Amino acid sequence: MSLERESTINLGAGPSALPTSVLQESTKALLNFNGLGMGITEISHRSSAFQKVIRDAENDLRDLLSIPDDYAVLFLQGGGTEQFSAIVLNMLAAHAARNPSYEGTPPVDYLVTGSWSSKAMKEAQRLTKRVNMVADLRSSISDAEAKITPPEQWALSPVEEIPAMLHYCDNETIGGFEMPSNIIQQLPSKYREQVPIVADCSSNILSRPIDIRAHGAIYFGVQKNIGPSGLAMAIVRRDLVVDSEKLSSPYAPSIPTSLLYKNAMDNGSLYNTPPMFPIYVSGLVFRDLVRLGGVTAAQQRAASRSDVVYGALLSYPTLYRPVVQHAEYRSQMNVTFRILDPATQQPSPELEASFAQYCSDRHIFNIKGHRSVGGLRASLYNAITQEQAETFANVIREFAKQHISS
Amino acid sequence: MSLERESTINLGAGPSALPTSVLQESTKALLNFNGLGMGITEISHRSSAFQKVIRDAENDLRDLLSIPDDYAVLFLQGGGTEQFSAIVLNMLAAHAARNPSYEGTPPVDYLVTGSWSSKAMKEAQRLTKRVNMVADLRSSISDAEAKITPPEQWALSPVEEIPAMLHYCDNETIGGFEMPSNIIQQLPSKYREQVPIVADCSSNILSRPIDIRAHGAIYFGVQKNIGPSGLAMAIVRRDLVVDSEKLSSPYAPSIPTSLLYKNAMDNGSLYNTPPMFPIYVSGLVFRDLVRLGGVTAAQQRAASRSDVVYGALLSYPTLYRPVVQHAEYRSQMNVTFRILDPATQQPSPELEASFAQYCSDRHIFNIKGHRSVGGLRASLYNAITQEQAETFANVIREFAKQHISS
Repeated sequence: MSLERESTINLGAGPSALPTSVLQESTKALLNFNGLGMGITEISHRSSAFQKVIRDAENDLRDLLSIPDDYAVLFLQGGGTEQFSAIVLNMLAAHAARNPSYEGTPPVDYLVTGSWSSKAMKEAQRLTKRVNMVADLRSSISDAEAKITPPEQWALSPVEEIPAMLHYCDNETIGGFEMPSNIIQQLPSKYREQVPIVADCSSNILSRPIDIRAHGAIYFGVQKNIGPSGLAMAIVRRDLVVDSEKLSSPYAPSIPTSLLYKNAMDNGSLYNTPPMFPIYVSGLVFRDLVRLGGVTAAQQRAASRSDVVYGALLSYPTLYRPVVQHAEYRSQMNVTFRILDPATQQPSPELEASFAQYCSDRHIFNIKGHRSVGGLRASLYNAITQEQAETFANVIREFAKQHISS
Repeated sequence: MSLERESTINLGAGPSALPTSVLQESTKALLNFNGLGMGITEISHRSSAFQKVIRDAENDLRDLLSIPDDYAVLFLQGGGTEQFSAIVLNMLAAHAARNPSYEGTPPVDYLVTGSWSSKAMKEAQRLTKRVNMVADLRSSISDAEAKITPPEQWALSPVEEIPAMLHYCDNETIGGFEMPSNIIQQLPSKYREQVPIVADCSSNILSRPIDIRAHGAIYFGVQKNIGPSGLAMAIVRRDLVVDSEKLSSPYAPSIPTSLLYKNAMDNGSLYNTPPMFPIYVSGLVFRDLVRLGGVTAAQQRAASRSDVVYGALLSYPTLYRPVVQHAEYRSQMNVTFRILDPATQQPSPELEASFAQYCSDRHIFNIKGHRSVGGLRASLYNAITQEQAETFANVIREFAKQHISS
């Protein structure tokens, strides 16, 4: 079977669909960028042509997210997983620089809301001694909101112990759990003012505004909402960007150079050869988003897409059940849901397989849930069009009519 | 000015030219891979389609380099710079696993032959305490071979101290200094047998055979001889692949997960989203090299290209001088040379600028020497054709005739 691109709908959770127009422009650039007679991956990363690419991308991202000047924008290699390591190492170094007479090891606070924030916490446990889980809001398939607790009930480290950061994941792709956007404001003001808040925004960046000033740092791998895998970005308040080598602190770790934010910042992200193609494509996506009205417009489109899909699911409550039952925490990016056996009202892996096949027959792909949890998941990242979301919603309704009437 | 790809010759040192046929196939795959109706960067890295891509790439590389089964082939993110950190951390962990009762910190030996091996050594100094420079063979522009010393004169760490590795760079792109391929055989046999020898092959991998068995590990960023930037690879003897977390050794460092060879090996390089596009393109290049007769044929082509260029330079010894005067150490990948003032016989930056312009007028690009050393550098990686090398050699001769007769 050979399919046309135009006839398929790719609802994969990442790596995921990219805008066709961006990919078309990228293919030209691969063979001949800007009439240089050479491709974008064949020129020096220090050439003026590539410097313009990376600076334009940075400037467009600064516009899109209203990034203040006292925050550095870093293009880093790899993805979110490497940033799990980098963020804790760099924040410990920042802590050591800010608290030269600190004794012992400072705590790092982690909020766990799903698989990714849990992985981030485990990486911190690998690299430092005092990791504090402030709460575990993990949804399970059968009891999605049992553990949702408000910030006043979280076990935050005492401000007096000067935590090196609070880390959270803004959107959990596996559970389909997205943080309410006002969550940081609900933290105690003293904590908020003194502890750098760090967000992993890998799967919802640029789908809604984010208050950069409320954060010490945010970071994201690009391969879900932005571009091809192999690139991560970090937006870090400049006073938190330091080199551990200059510090005599016993807990400031030796940070490998490629993970060191200070090195990336001081070298304009061009210390060594960066992942040029992902940077180039990401720049095209940023430019495209600016043209389409920025992040506010992207947020409206995201809301519209996910409303259509959740709406279709909720129209048939005896057949479909969103995994995240509390609407406020439902992701606009990853719609996770179960299909229930009409008789037992329990999730039916058979019906879910049948639905996935039904979709696949209609050229809608990659909607199986993550292998660790099962169920179904439709990812509606920025590159998914309203028309594609509506087509999928129609398929949800058609399938329901067949299975409820039968 | 807008140039056609076919009319340009890109002699850049990296990122550098890629085969046009490979790029053409890649552009199709970006929009629609294998008739899936989705691009290669839009599908899951865990899909069967991508698993086939990465396993085929591994198998072709194993064929090309005759990699024994007891060596793991790892696809890693980033490039050589991250491997500077990863290699020393992983080799220290391997040392700790092999020598559980070792006291103190073991030495790591570094051979310095130019900028890259020097950078690798500096990174080791960041991450461990006992770094031993066994020799500094660095060529300078004015006195290129003054320091070339044979292995019997190197200050290797005593075998009794159980060095964790000996690291060298097989080809220095900036100096144009390439190790003679028999260099390891000249090390004392006891040292060779007991100390893992590690080679950074970033800039000459697949341009000549390499004796994998003689090494504990080799690694390379792909962006010079293979594919787009953002991917590094390591070939590591499996008994040297361990996790430091399991060890109680005081010197075995905590290795960030993304740098941990054990994690990559145990997960088939798919623990997290890898740099998919560079892996895909690298796979095409491997397949292409197999088709063209493997590494032996590639070596003949590399020798033929560089012979033509060095030959042209050496025909005019009063005008051109290779930076590396000892022919045995001259790189087949990076031909570094100076242009001499005919009167003083000293390097003339003016004549060099004039030569670069002369080349540029003929659509031969990126031949300026690295900013740290000046001079000129023509890089003749695998993707450069014999015809392009001959065109460049002709330009060398034409320029000489104009400047020697005038």
